[in-house]
Amino acid sequence: MEKDISPLQGTELFKKLSPEQITKVLHICRTVHFFENDIIMKEGEIGDRMYIILKGTVEIIKRLIMDGIDDDEVAEKNKVFTRLDADQHSVFGEIALLQEFKRTATVRAVTDCTLYEISKNDFLTLAESDFEFGYRILLNMAGIVSARLRKADEDTIKLTTVLSMILKES
Amino acid sequence: MEKDISPLQGTELFKKLSPEQITKVLHICRTVHFFENDIIMKEGEIGDRMYIILKGTVEIIKRLIMDGIDDDEVAEKNKVFTRLDADQHSVFGEIALLQEFKRTATVRAVTDCTLYEISKNDFLTLAESDFEFGYRILLNMAGIVSARLRKADEDTIKLTTVLSMILKES
Repeated sequence: MEKDISPLQGTELFKKLSPEQITKVLHICRTVHFFENDIIMKEGEIGDRMYIILKGTVEIIKRLIMDGIDDDEVAEKNKVFTRLDADQHSVFGEIALLQEFKRTATVRAVTDCTLYEISKNDFLTLAESDFEFGYRILLNMAGIVSARLRKADEDTIKLTTVLSMILKES
Repeated sequence: MEKDISPLQGTELFKKLSPEQITKVLHICRTVHFFENDIIMKEGEIGDRMYIILKGTVEIIKRLIMDGIDDDEVAEKNKVFTRLDADQHSVFGEIALLQEFKRTATVRAVTDCTLYEISKNDFLTLAESDFEFGYRILLNMAGIVSARLRKADEDTIKLTTVLSMILKES
């Protein structure tokens, strides 16, 4: 399959990159395929690669309660499911390019999927060889991660508010 | 006061920068003073500068429950206080260098303080003029923000777990 820069151009992660810089990213993209119901990444596993959806739909499954809660019904109810597809030029797992973290969500292929995969090593090697590229992409990345941090902070405040109201009443 | 690079060298934000690059950061540092009890930044206000503690101790005050909860006692109880001082080469407000966000905490001077202040504009101008510098500092910044995001995610999971246990019992 001929590689095409357009799926990358639409993403938040690659905004403000020149076509030449996006072409460099393409060189480190590996095209990978998953079948319906395949698990693309698993929460808790160490990840070192990110993905861009070219074709198909995936589901991000995020656990809301801790491991070891011995009640499958409660555990199942306390998950958040978000779908992503190629129309949104969706990217996932991108924090793995920064640090080898445990994945914070499981991602499942809802349909057969074609994705671009970028490894942390290839990404860092490219960034170290072209600091302007590295700077621009990290500025985008930092913006994405900061926005998520803000949202997570707001969630914490909401949850603590609910908890304090319940505890006050009891 | 002669500017000294050593307070910057010890910080997570400036790690792996060369002495020359740290000297460039010093050029955009403004030395500012606050008196005991001064509010250095206020939660909810838009911030466009970060600080590095040179002398003194500050307190980070983070609200845990939402505005509009009409109960001062509850509101007061649901705050987290963290102290930072010069010994830890502490930095705060650094996300303001990435985006003009509302401050997520209030910072108060516990003692008289001397700080370095860096504005977003000066930082971005410097980074755009030296992409290697920009890349290295953003890689550090992205690491810091990612670690915070991971912690915030864990907090959300803990809070939801407690909440689901309480709701199950009631």
